[in-house]
Amino acid sequence: MTIEWLNNPTKALNGVTQAAAIERQGRLTKPPGSLGGLEAMAIRLSAMQGRERPQVDKVHIAIFAADHGVTAAGVSAFPQEVTVQMVANFSAGGAAISVLAKSLGAKLEVVDVGTVVPPSEVMGELPGVISHRAGPGTANLHSEDAMTAAQLAVALDAGRASALRAQEAGAELFIGGDMGIGNTTAAAAITCALLGVEPALLAGPGTGLDESGVSRKAQVLREALARYQGLAESPLETLRCVGGFEIAALAGAYLSCAQLGIAVLVDGYITTAAALLAVKLQPGVKDWLIFAHRSAEPGHKAMLEALEAEPLLSLGLRLGEGSGAATAVPLLRLACDLHNGMATFADAGVSEA
Amino acid sequence: MTIEWLNNPTKALNGVTQAAAIERQGRLTKPPGSLGGLEAMAIRLSAMQGRERPQVDKVHIAIFAADHGVTAAGVSAFPQEVTVQMVANFSAGGAAISVLAKSLGAKLEVVDVGTVVPPSEVMGELPGVISHRAGPGTANLHSEDAMTAAQLAVALDAGRASALRAQEAGAELFIGGDMGIGNTTAAAAITCALLGVEPALLAGPGTGLDESGVSRKAQVLREALARYQGLAESPLETLRCVGGFEIAALAGAYLSCAQLGIAVLVDGYITTAAALLAVKLQPGVKDWLIFAHRSAEPGHKAMLEALEAEPLLSLGLRLGEGSGAATAVPLLRLACDLHNGMATFADAGVSEA
Repeated sequence: MTIEWLNNPTKALNGVTQAAAIERQGRLTKPPGSLGGLEAMAIRLSAMQGRERPQVDKVHIAIFAADHGVTAAGVSAFPQEVTVQMVANFSAGGAAISVLAKSLGAKLEVVDVGTVVPPSEVMGELPGVISHRAGPGTANLHSEDAMTAAQLAVALDAGRASALRAQEAGAELFIGGDMGIGNTTAAAAITCALLGVEPALLAGPGTGLDESGVSRKAQVLREALARYQGLAESPLETLRCVGGFEIAALAGAYLSCAQLGIAVLVDGYITTAAALLAVKLQPGVKDWLIFAHRSAEPGHKAMLEALEAEPLLSLGLRLGEGSGAATAVPLLRLACDLHNGMATFADAGVSEA
Repeated sequence: MTIEWLNNPTKALNGVTQAAAIERQGRLTKPPGSLGGLEAMAIRLSAMQGRERPQVDKVHIAIFAADHGVTAAGVSAFPQEVTVQMVANFSAGGAAISVLAKSLGAKLEVVDVGTVVPPSEVMGELPGVISHRAGPGTANLHSEDAMTAAQLAVALDAGRASALRAQEAGAELFIGGDMGIGNTTAAAAITCALLGVEPALLAGPGTGLDESGVSRKAQVLREALARYQGLAESPLETLRCVGGFEIAALAGAYLSCAQLGIAVLVDGYITTAAALLAVKLQPGVKDWLIFAHRSAEPGHKAMLEALEAEPLLSLGLRLGEGSGAATAVPLLRLACDLHNGMATFADAGVSEA
């Protein structure tokens, strides 16, 4: 399969503004390095945004929703109809990410990449929901390929289209979120295939499976992965065989952001699996990813280690929807405020060490 | 020594609103517990504020500044004149905490509890700086008692006065910050005395000591503590003999907040030493403390363990000034927004697990 835009080069970071930002941090009225991760964030954003004084005022949040045939294997604590109900909840402003987006003054868009039935048919007209459907949910990855090559191309493009809308709106930060009952199973399958790790390490409770449910999920993963050989060598085939539409869209969005030069704040378990895919497709994507938080879903650890990621927060979140990333946005904003607004030793007449 | 107000009882948490908040969290459209620490924060604030729907719009930040005679022992990377220069920087808006307070829309007051020379004499008139002086810096705790009983009473009262101003302003959250060249040595001395731990475990680089400087600091601590027996039995005597004016003010402020029923967000190394003192004075203080971050100063770990504290952030900060606490404020605000603004399963028509 060839999807031309996937091979467009990722943008290089700006070494000039990065050096200027590092130099600036050294002149601010504080012991060198004493703002730790806040200094590092401002410097990274400076390199991504190509300006000595970065900002994250304009935040674009895109939630990608889709259904998963693998729910038939009993891998989720919630029924599949919840995917569409939550799309309506995003639209109505009642979901966690809706509340967070409003508090942050961020743009929120919801993209239906393929629920079983289009949300509007079940819930009526839903403002703010974009239709970019790859199909009526994936096939059951437990027993067959999750999607066709044509469906994969549409799903990846859903992410690209969102990144282009973010660019059009002048977004200074892109956040992708996920909604899809059953999607921790797809994310685990992708990660197991790409990293060659045991399903038992990646299968977790998701939205709330009990111990026997988690065992069943690990077994489903083992049986699904046994059908394929050499999947790890092709991230796209991994995504097609055991992935999900919203995960493909997220991977497409991250890769596009790296090509367009938009900083990305990665959320939790599902989105990190998508980030892993995007980095496997093009290693340069990694320069554009900031990791927001450590998920309470146990398998997240293996993904973060593979990406050498050091997330900003560790608050035991495991909701998805981009909620962990949204929670970390104020840290980036305060990092920029400090970087841009503090006095230098010279300006303030403060003696140095 | 008797200071009457120290013995006023701390306020009890509100179990009714806490129970209502727990129940409310269970009805919001998310898997139970999936917002982790954000749920816990909203519930704790609900118990502190006595309302099912807590808020942290009004934040009162008080920076207590004072000088330390122990700087004569060569325990700091910065010269002592920086304390007063930084008070001027706070006032002029150029310091980290000034920038953060502005970004958060928080009230910022700076209290001079005893710099060597009053800031206005060195720097001219400084708007927003309150004078509540216990003396011209402490004596050198390396060789003598840091302060007299009368000075201690004034310093504690500086904190109480600040907490009362916060109450008067209707503050929903109190943040205390510290400024005082040499104050990591005093904070370490207090902690070693109260917890009976080795100075080598508590002595760290502070604003930037090298390895030999840290060794010297540990030796100064050992020699200072050797002069006293049974100091741990009296938190007030510990504070008087090896403490600092701003640390006393912080302890007084925390105790007062617990008496008045104002939630406290504790910052880093210096403030946690003050929190430890306040909890030793009255264990009920602990109910009112939220810990903002893990400091990069190595000895902070021992303090946090003694208080069984689980801080919200771990970003490698080690600046003081209340900067870590201010950085965590948006997390509390978002926790409240989610708690108060999310739809319930019933309202949104979303199926439960």
